[in-house]
Amino acid sequence: MSMFRANIEAMTGYVPGEQPPPGKIIKLNTNENPYACSPQVTRAIERACAQGLSRYPDPSATAFRHCAAQVLGGAHALDIGPEWILCGNGSDDILTIVTRAFVGEGELVRHPTPSYVLYRTLAEIQGARVEEVPFAPDWTLGSQFAAPADDLRLAYLANPNSPSGTMIAPDRVFELADALPCLLLVDEAYVDFADTDCLSLVARSEKIMVARTLSKSYALAGLRFGFLVAQPHVIEQLAKVKDSYNCDALSIAGACAAIDDQAWRMENREKIVAARSRLTQAMRELGFDPPDSQANFVWNPHPELPVQPIYERLKKAGVLVRYMDYPGIGDGLRITVGTDSQIDACLSLLKTLV
Amino acid sequence: MSMFRANIEAMTGYVPGEQPPPGKIIKLNTNENPYACSPQVTRAIERACAQGLSRYPDPSATAFRHCAAQVLGGAHALDIGPEWILCGNGSDDILTIVTRAFVGEGELVRHPTPSYVLYRTLAEIQGARVEEVPFAPDWTLGSQFAAPADDLRLAYLANPNSPSGTMIAPDRVFELADALPCLLLVDEAYVDFADTDCLSLVARSEKIMVARTLSKSYALAGLRFGFLVAQPHVIEQLAKVKDSYNCDALSIAGACAAIDDQAWRMENREKIVAARSRLTQAMRELGFDPPDSQANFVWNPHPELPVQPIYERLKKAGVLVRYMDYPGIGDGLRITVGTDSQIDACLSLLKTLV
Repeated sequence: MSMFRANIEAMTGYVPGEQPPPGKIIKLNTNENPYACSPQVTRAIERACAQGLSRYPDPSATAFRHCAAQVLGGAHALDIGPEWILCGNGSDDILTIVTRAFVGEGELVRHPTPSYVLYRTLAEIQGARVEEVPFAPDWTLGSQFAAPADDLRLAYLANPNSPSGTMIAPDRVFELADALPCLLLVDEAYVDFADTDCLSLVARSEKIMVARTLSKSYALAGLRFGFLVAQPHVIEQLAKVKDSYNCDALSIAGACAAIDDQAWRMENREKIVAARSRLTQAMRELGFDPPDSQANFVWNPHPELPVQPIYERLKKAGVLVRYMDYPGIGDGLRITVGTDSQIDACLSLLKTLV
Repeated sequence: MSMFRANIEAMTGYVPGEQPPPGKIIKLNTNENPYACSPQVTRAIERACAQGLSRYPDPSATAFRHCAAQVLGGAHALDIGPEWILCGNGSDDILTIVTRAFVGEGELVRHPTPSYVLYRTLAEIQGARVEEVPFAPDWTLGSQFAAPADDLRLAYLANPNSPSGTMIAPDRVFELADALPCLLLVDEAYVDFADTDCLSLVARSEKIMVARTLSKSYALAGLRFGFLVAQPHVIEQLAKVKDSYNCDALSIAGACAAIDDQAWRMENREKIVAARSRLTQAMRELGFDPPDSQANFVWNPHPELPVQPIYERLKKAGVLVRYMDYPGIGDGLRITVGTDSQIDACLSLLKTLV
C-alpha cells in the first residue's frame, strides 16, 4: 500500500554534502566558514539558555528583524523596517516558504543551471515542473531566463552562484526581474563575500526577494538562521506559510548578536577573501581553470585532466572537497575557502596529484 | 499585482497564543511547562555551543533517533530502531512534513472538532479541503471519523485533544485507523501527562504515525524539537520532504539530553498531574464543568455564565489564560496547569469573579 503523493514517491530527495564526524579531516566540501563565530554570539546563546527554554520563542523573531533592518538599511542607505524581513530556520526554510506560497501543482519554476540543486527538490515536493536555463560559458545569463512561459510562478537565482562562485551584476538582475512574468528569489547565501549585492533592488521592485543566511559569512551553519528581505505586502503573505515558531529562542538570540557584530563579519570576510585569491591563483598554476569567485569557495574545472580521481585521492588523504559533474557542462572540484593552513594542506596534496 | 497562490491569499493564517514579554504576568495560555527543563539539557547545550556552530548539524539528528528509539522502545517493549524516527523543528515541522507528503491540491483531510486549529491551516497551505468531524458531547469520536470519502488523504487526531484535554483510548484509535482509507497522524503533544498512549500501535499498523514534542513534558517550547514515530518505509518517504538541516546543533544536543533524563520527566509529570487534579476540582467547585484532563491544561466551559468577561478580567489582573469559542459547541477557558502558586493565584482571582 502506498498513500504518498505520486510526486513524493517519484523524487529522490536532496542529498546534502558529506558531514563526516569531527576529527582530523580537513573539510572543504560544504562551504562552511572555517573560523569560529563571533564570541558575542556564544555569549548571547548562553544568556538565552540561562533565561530558560520553557516558553515559546517570539513567533516572528522581532528582535532580529529590528536589528537586521537597522544594520542592512544603514549599510545600503535603504529605508526598511522589520516589516520587510521574514526569518527562517536557515535560508532553506525561507526557500521552502517562498516556494509553497507561489508554486502550485503542475505549475512551473525556473532556475539557471548549474546551480543549487535544492531548487529542483523544492519544486518536486510541490509537484511542480522545473525549467533549467543554462548559464553561458562565461557564467552570464541570457534573456531566456526572463522569457514568458505559461504557468511560470517563481524564478530562483543563486547570486553568487554555486558551484561557479560567479555573480550576475545587480543592474542585470533588475532587468531580468523586470522582464520576468513572476517573482524572482535572489538567493544571496554567499553575498557577504562578494563586491556587491541586490538588497537595494528590493525597494525598487516588488518582484524581487532577497534571501540571506547566517550559515556562511557569520560562521553559523549549525545554528540554522536565515531571512528574507522583500516588500512588506509580500512578507505579509509569506508569513502565513511559515511554521508558527520556526526560529528557536537560542537561534534568535545568537542571530541578533551575530548581525550586531559587523566588525567580526568584516574581519572574517577579509581573511576569507585573501585566502580565496591565493587559492584561485594556486589552482590556476596547477592547471585548473577557476572563474574568479565572489563566494567563499572556488570552482575548479580542469581543461584536460579527469578530476574525480583527484577528489578521491584528496579524500583518502583527509581533505574533503566537493566533486560535481553536470551533464553537458562537465565536472570540477568545488573547494571551500578554509583557513590558510587548510588551504596550504590542500594545495600541497594537489601538487602531488596533478 | 498579486502572484501568490489563490489559496494562500484567501487564508488568514494561524494565530499563535499570546506571548507577552517576560515579566510579572502569570502565563497559563499556551500550555508551556511552568518549570525549568532538566539541568542536563542546559549543560548539553552549553557544551555543544562551546564545540562551535560553524559546521552544519547532522541532517537526520542520528544521535537523538538512537536515544529516543532506546528510551521509547524500552518503555513500550517495542523493538524499534532509529529508522522508525523522523526529527523536526518542533512537532509543527513534523505536521507540516506529513501534510506535504500526503496531501495535494484539492484533496481532503479530516480532523475532529474542536481541536488544534493548525491542522486546517496546514491543509489550506496545500490548497486542500478540510472535513471537520465533531466530537460527541462526551468527547468520544464516532465512526464518522473513519468513513470512506473521495480524495481523503490524511486524518489528524490530537490525542490528548486540545482544548478538551480528553483522550481516545488506543484500542479505539486502532479501530478508527484500520477503517480509515488513509493514514492517521496521532498528535501526542500532551501524551506524557496521560495514562496511556498510542506508540505501540505504530508497530501494529503502517497506517498510524505518532507525533511527539519536547515542548510540553520536557519544558522545551523555546528549543523547537519534535519527532515522528512511524514504520521505516513511511519515515523514508517523509525524510525527502523535510528541509535538509531542519534541526540545529543546539536543539539536537538539548533533545538528546532531555530524552535521556527520564527521571526529570517523571518527577515533573507528578507535579503537573497533582496540580491538574487540584485545578480541576477547584474549577468544578466554582461552577465550571471541566472534563477530566489527560494533558497539562484543563478545559473549563461554564454551564451558565458567559466566560469571555472572566477571561478579560483575569488578563487585566495579570493572569493570562486562553479564551476559546467554538461555533455550535460554545466557549470556555483553557487553563494551563502552572506551578502550585500560579494555580493558587488564578483560583483566588476566579473566586472574586464568578
